[in-house]
Amino acid sequence: MKSINLPKEMKALVFVEKEKIAIVKKPVPVVGPNDLLIKVTTTTICGTDIHIRKGEYPVAPNLTIGHEAVGTVAAYGANVKGFELGERVLAGAITPSGHSAACQYGQSSQDGMDETYGYKATGGWKFGNIEDGCQAEYVLVKNAMANVAKIPESLTDNQVILCPDILSTGIKGSENAQIKLGDTVLLVAQGPIGLCATIGAKLLGAATIIAVDGDENRLRMAKELGATHTINFAKEDVMEAIKRITNGRLCDASVECLGLNATFQTCLKSLRPGGTLSSIGVYSQDLVIPLESFAAGLGDHTIKTSLCPGGAERMRRLIKLIEEKRIDVSKLVTHEYKFDQIVEAYDLFQSRGDGVLKIAVKME
Amino acid sequence: MKSINLPKEMKALVFVEKEKIAIVKKPVPVVGPNDLLIKVTTTTICGTDIHIRKGEYPVAPNLTIGHEAVGTVAAYGANVKGFELGERVLAGAITPSGHSAACQYGQSSQDGMDETYGYKATGGWKFGNIEDGCQAEYVLVKNAMANVAKIPESLTDNQVILCPDILSTGIKGSENAQIKLGDTVLLVAQGPIGLCATIGAKLLGAATIIAVDGDENRLRMAKELGATHTINFAKEDVMEAIKRITNGRLCDASVECLGLNATFQTCLKSLRPGGTLSSIGVYSQDLVIPLESFAAGLGDHTIKTSLCPGGAERMRRLIKLIEEKRIDVSKLVTHEYKFDQIVEAYDLFQSRGDGVLKIAVKME
Amino acid sequence: MKSINLPKEMKALVFVEKEKIAIVKKPVPVVGPNDLLIKVTTTTICGTDIHIRKGEYPVAPNLTIGHEAVGTVAAYGANVKGFELGERVLAGAITPSGHSAACQYGQSSQDGMDETYGYKATGGWKFGNIEDGCQAEYVLVKNAMANVAKIPESLTDNQVILCPDILSTGIKGSENAQIKLGDTVLLVAQGPIGLCATIGAKLLGAATIIAVDGDENRLRMAKELGATHTINFAKEDVMEAIKRITNGRLCDASVECLGLNATFQTCLKSLRPGGTLSSIGVYSQDLVIPLESFAAGLGDHTIKTSLCPGGAERMRRLIKLIEEKRIDVSKLVTHEYKFDQIVEAYDLFQSRGDGVLKIAVKME
Amino acid sequence: MKSINLPKEMKALVFVEKEKIAIVKKPVPVVGPNDLLIKVTTTTICGTDIHIRKGEYPVAPNLTIGHEAVGTVAAYGANVKGFELGERVLAGAITPSGHSAACQYGQSSQDGMDETYGYKATGGWKFGNIEDGCQAEYVLVKNAMANVAKIPESLTDNQVILCPDILSTGIKGSENAQIKLGDTVLLVAQGPIGLCATIGAKLLGAATIIAVDGDENRLRMAKELGATHTINFAKEDVMEAIKRITNGRLCDASVECLGLNATFQTCLKSLRPGGTLSSIGVYSQDLVIPLESFAAGLGDHTIKTSLCPGGAERMRRLIKLIEEKRIDVSKLVTHEYKFDQIVEAYDLFQSRGDGVLKIAVKME
Repeated sequence: MKSINLPKEMKALVFVEKEKIAIVKKPVPVVGPNDLLIKVTTTTICGTDIHIRKGEYPVAPNLTIGHEAVGTVAAYGANVKGFELGERVLAGAITPSGHSAACQYGQSSQDGMDETYGYKATGGWKFGNIEDGCQAEYVLVKNAMANVAKIPESLTDNQVILCPDILSTGIKGSENAQIKLGDTVLLVAQGPIGLCATIGAKLLGAATIIAVDGDENRLRMAKELGATHTINFAKEDVMEAIKRITNGRLCDASVECLGLNATFQTCLKSLRPGGTLSSIGVYSQDLVIPLESFAAGLGDHTIKTSLCPGGAERMRRLIKLIEEKRIDVSKLVTHEYKFDQIVEAYDLFQSRGDGVLKIAVKME
Repeated sequence: MKSINLPKEMKALVFVEKEKIAIVKKPVPVVGPNDLLIKVTTTTICGTDIHIRKGEYPVAPNLTIGHEAVGTVAAYGANVKGFELGERVLAGAITPSGHSAACQYGQSSQDGMDETYGYKATGGWKFGNIEDGCQAEYVLVKNAMANVAKIPESLTDNQVILCPDILSTGIKGSENAQIKLGDTVLLVAQGPIGLCATIGAKLLGAATIIAVDGDENRLRMAKELGATHTINFAKEDVMEAIKRITNGRLCDASVECLGLNATFQTCLKSLRPGGTLSSIGVYSQDLVIPLESFAAGLGDHTIKTSLCPGGAERMRRLIKLIEEKRIDVSKLVTHEYKFDQIVEAYDLFQSRGDGVLKIAVKME
Repeated sequence: MKSINLPKEMKALVFVEKEKIAIVKKPVPVVGPNDLLIKVTTTTICGTDIHIRKGEYPVAPNLTIGHEAVGTVAAYGANVKGFELGERVLAGAITPSGHSAACQYGQSSQDGMDETYGYKATGGWKFGNIEDGCQAEYVLVKNAMANVAKIPESLTDNQVILCPDILSTGIKGSENAQIKLGDTVLLVAQGPIGLCATIGAKLLGAATIIAVDGDENRLRMAKELGATHTINFAKEDVMEAIKRITNGRLCDASVECLGLNATFQTCLKSLRPGGTLSSIGVYSQDLVIPLESFAAGLGDHTIKTSLCPGGAERMRRLIKLIEEKRIDVSKLVTHEYKFDQIVEAYDLFQSRGDGVLKIAVKME
Repeated sequence: MKSINLPKEMKALVFVEKEKIAIVKKPVPVVGPNDLLIKVTTTTICGTDIHIRKGEYPVAPNLTIGHEAVGTVAAYGANVKGFELGERVLAGAITPSGHSAACQYGQSSQDGMDETYGYKATGGWKFGNIEDGCQAEYVLVKNAMANVAKIPESLTDNQVILCPDILSTGIKGSENAQIKLGDTVLLVAQGPIGLCATIGAKLLGAATIIAVDGDENRLRMAKELGATHTINFAKEDVMEAIKRITNGRLCDASVECLGLNATFQTCLKSLRPGGTLSSIGVYSQDLVIPLESFAAGLGDHTIKTSLCPGGAERMRRLIKLIEEKRIDVSKLVTHEYKFDQIVEAYDLFQSRGDGVLKIAVKME
């Protein structure tokens, strides 16, 4: 094991109980032969973290939360090759083992699919879920060779802090929409994930990119990031607007970026026969597929869902797209906080006040 | 236009009104430059025809119903090349134009997708739906070059009569399940279409093929056609049986072959994270996706629906599979009737009596 | 048949004999039931036309040459729906029938693949090859429903004149490269087709886009159109430059845009194990695959070739990408000529003088 | 680490020098935290081993050769979960790390593709190439979680001994041929790998399966395993025979299973426009692509190569296909030898005498 001089203790934000999170002191993690320890420089807060804080998504008391971090290599084990101490790195929110059946299928986010881990969905999500997460001074990345990606000197933390989750998820939304050159794509809800899906739709060659939200600020940002048309659902009927924009052809694909029955149904209804609905929202209730939108099962429709893709190679590619200036997500980082004020950052993020999209939380 | 001596009139089975179908006399169709006229030798009855008879699926009074026919070339127009009068041929139940946007996408069953036809789903289905169909002495195939396939001398009518609909649909069910070598596939409901899906699962390289039905006869037939395991839902809990057979891994793919909310949900519940549900049933109500089966939208699931694929090339391939003895569906033809007794054949088919699966209706 | 008042005769550029092309008078084509007649407003010259002029690619004497045209609807037959006389339209260089087996496979450029047309490659290419082409006052589009696309009022002829061939071919080059988000793609030769391949690589989400040519002007244009790096093969070793740019990783995909053994081999050599070579060049000699570049057959490489994709839907999508400002190819049109001076335009294009890329030839 | 009582030394077959292999004594390997040690019960000899013996493929002196083994778990490290000592297992010939970029792309046979391993092709092949192999009493599997698969009690060693290489490679040949239902597929050369490709073509839904070889015995075996037609190249012209069998349509796909320029060219020439050539042969010279077979680069052809796929999940699926009786390769095991006679087994295999296909070499 190699390491930079490590302290014994570190600060970490933990889930205490429903509605209560707090910064506590914890031992710095022990580094095993396949592990790499990141000294965090920037972390951020995700919608999922808010669900965890509220107790809507259960995690163990005293678990360090958060699943997005940028930092430097503080230590690594004997089997970890190709890294140097002090080098800038990040890991995805989802940290696949690399060796499960799911990884070997190409569905590494569902990592829990082998005789060892059992067959629960979302098994690739470990940080801040079943293992200590990223809102801390140090975070331990297991199976480091499969998960840690380097950050070029030319990029700042804020330019890459969305790679681990929001950017990877949003772009996957558009990848799953199976966009073909010249497609018309609908993106419903333009929060941070939806905006990243809009970036993805542009990046994948859609011609007509229609973004839907109720917030003019977010629609303006959608236009900047690639939307060719926007619909404010508070001001006009979404289906009428889609028909007008597409001359009645409807959409080749739609991306659900929120997680409500209503938005899911809009996404389905907006599709031409043969179209694809890609869902990246997280739902909290059963979904209803209206018979007609589904053409009674005869419309050659496809519905795809996904969890955020992780893994070092995914991260490397997202970083490369940023480095080559194909993508710029730094404008989604609207606020900065120091780690000691992270609970206030949670409050702001949860309230959606002050035009907040994403908050960079700095360790020093 | 070339033709064998044609009569003026022909017998055709038409929809009269709800619950009433009848053989009537009609003029033999006029053959245009892109058309081919088939003198029908064998036709058959589909579950959809029963819905039409009951008035559950509306068609115009006096429309000739039926969408499956085998016969010989009686006439063809000036633009139709490569056929000879008297030659044995068939056309798919779905008769795509060949020129719509949907055809150019590779989704020709949704043929109605261009500025001309509008954007209604299932636009490729014309026979016995929006044009005169196949339960008649003659049937006119428009866009004949895109739709008519030849039958080799070595094959009987009964060997190929399922190609136009049941076989094409059932196999598409398994194609849409995206089966990879060694997959575990569940097929729910083993009527004629479900049995053809089972044939498809075998043909596409599934390892473990689990067929579900409540009828032991059908399960026995499923075993003969390729199922490696069967589950009688009347005798055991389907999910328990799946867990037992798969050692708790669940299924890589499932095919819904009936069209009920309950069977759809079983198909979803049976999937491992990352699995695919292929639906070929025709539904008559809204569908509900239970939150848990869908992993709240995070399970990397895929749901695909489809209408029967048609077109000459699809038909040629199905016929070839039969000719090379890769498939044998003749045992699904359990009964034969003369055309003059076709209404009685409907009665039998509708009642599901006498172990009936498919009925060959002979014109002479 | 509907038509605007048509003259009896028209001017057309024909192949006379090796090295000789000439404008002659010909009858305006007769319009059949499936046909649409375009009154040409703009046409252009392709590298293939130069081969034809030189007699290197044989066509019948007196055949009208050219396969790219923009114009208005002058007449159409009884089966042609959805168009109005005078409306602005174009057709692809490749005009698939819509009904062959190849069309039904999704490989419509190889349209000659059925019992009727035989099985010759490139059967979808008819204009200026086996049927009268586009360098004329009028051009007849057979199977019009499968081939004619509308042009919105907002776009000029010069904005869309590359759609029929160069743009469709170049982009197909990048589509066949199977680009995944974040890929490194090499594009060898930056003539008009190569530049369109560069546009395609950007449109499909490549991160690192490396364009190779020996002409600084073309490399500058490549940068404008999406290349992130350029290599001038006259000034530096291409493989060394690739290794430098990619840190030794080599390329995920490469696109051969010229048609020489040497460029083909560079494309192969530049690939990482598992990479894809997409070839759109037209070769005039056998190709050699060096053992080492091919890893003795064990490197999981893919090589794909293609002819330009045609069909109305392909054209509609390319036009839509231009309309939505996702693509701008008008700067590739460097010169304009009147039709009466088309032979001089050929001379310029053939000489590659005056920085010529593409020439818009105007009918009036 | 857990282990069954292990000896200090073991017998292993090593490469000594060109033309010389010998059984020697070696220490039993040390088991690290990610490793699993297999006590070999059955191993076999591959064509590649013959190249190694002849010195045509260089390996280090004293390296244990062989890359196929079946055995029982003798020991495993602390990070290895889900196995029990004494349990029957096997590993693929190719043992991907699970964590390289190549693994994360789904091309794990090219495992050497990341900053750590460098970018050499075939990096996934370690056994008997760059690490001690399988023709020994014990073999150490690194990254065991990604590579070791269990064998059900119902299957004998001889039923599964082809899974690690021959079966996985042969079937990949047909997978890469992109077979669609009803395709016509040509398989050139019917040695053990070619026969497994024939099994794959059947398993994937080809209709017409044409096997080519010069040995009637092998052609007879091809028919038993799924070929619908055979061609003995010693007795008839292969292209003439293909045209006769396919009515001039040629083949949708072809699989090269030998590694010669001549067979590669036959595979290319046999394709219809738009067809796919899948190559699994290992070549020893540059390849030539004749201009005409390639339609000058305009025929929409695809050429794909591959190395044998490995990994635990691949192995699990092949074993499952055997367990469910979808595949039976035990008849390819024509001979059995004891390990002490393995050099004689090499002699027989190399001579191709006595109708030998594959030899099971037994450790006790």
